Amino acid sequence: MGMPMELNTMIVTKGKEHRKEENLFSLKKEGYRLYPIDIPIHVYKTRDGDITGTAIIEKIEWQKDHTEITYRLISLNSTN
Amino acid sequence: MGMPMELNTMIVTKGKEHRKEENLFSLKKEGYRLYPIDIPIHVYKTRDGDITGTAIIEKIEWQKDHTEITYRLISLNSTN
Amino acid sequence: MGMPMELNTMIVTKGKEHRKEENLFSLKKEGYRLYPIDIPIHVYKTRDGDITGTAIIEKIEWQKDHTEITYRLISLNSTN
Amino acid sequence: MGMPMELNTMIVTKGKEHRKEENLFSLKKEGYRLYPIDIPIHVYKTRDGDITGTAIIEKIEWQKDHTEITYRLISLNSTN
Repeated sequence: MGMPMELNTMIVTKGKEHRKEENLFSLKKEGYRLYPIDIPIHVYKTRDGDITGTAIIEKIEWQKDHTEITYRLISLNSTN
Repeated sequence: MGMPMELNTMIVTKGKEHRKEENLFSLKKEGYRLYPIDIPIHVYKTRDGDITGTAIIEKIEWQKDHTEITYRLISLNSTN
Repeated sequence: MGMPMELNTMIVTKGKEHRKEENLFSLKKEGYRLYPIDIPIHVYKTRDGDITGTAIIEKIEWQKDHTEITYRLISLNSTN
Repeated sequence: MGMPMELNTMIVTKGKEHRKEENLFSLKKEGYRLYPIDIPIHVYKTRDGDITGTAIIEKIEWQKDHTEITYRLISLNSTN
């Protein structure tokens, strides 16, 4: 009767993000994932890669065993 | 740096739900609230009232310090 | 990099609880589980069985991929 | 009927940690706080200060509206 979920403290895009506006992206992941919202968190392209930048998640949606986040990129690591 | 949220184990409508389809409703609440999704939970009209019915939450959205749930009513307490 | 956890809204003992005091029990479960604390929740012996009673979880400990809860039984279903 | 909690993605000690063993510390905070466990997270002395180091939380306890974490410091920022 439990509901599986995953606590996430960073965004890992794996290049699957979609640009919605200049700095606004959406990203859909499998399963129900809990992210901090309205708080700057790090963005990575791969789990073990370098930090791509910093973003603030503005929206989280849970539906049909998927999580979709909408996040605003607030800084980019220029070396990437 | 923490993100305040609230763990909810039931739906309390306070009569503020909106019917979207025959058995499908949406309800917007203040703050970020964690509900069990895809699992039958009880629905109450008021916090201390009788159970109105049982529902399954199909979607949860967190945005701008509000939580919107979409739930399907799967049974009604006939005495209500 | 996510941390798997499970949202639980009830206690399912499977008969594995340990009595610590007259109405106080501890129960250890696999994995990291999030339960409501300080709030009355239902206790079941098996996932699909009848309600055994109502309890309030007073303590939750997460360690080594296990969750241990300490709960006080506040009412028993006499028909069990 | 909701249970207030706070999602935390880092440890902020405010100098209130207690050393239990060479690299093992405990820290008690008010309220129920959800932290990632078994995953490296940053340690700060103050919310807006520099990173003190990196730690892995090994144990989380919730009781009486307080959260106690036990964490192992795995690296220190030498400039601090």
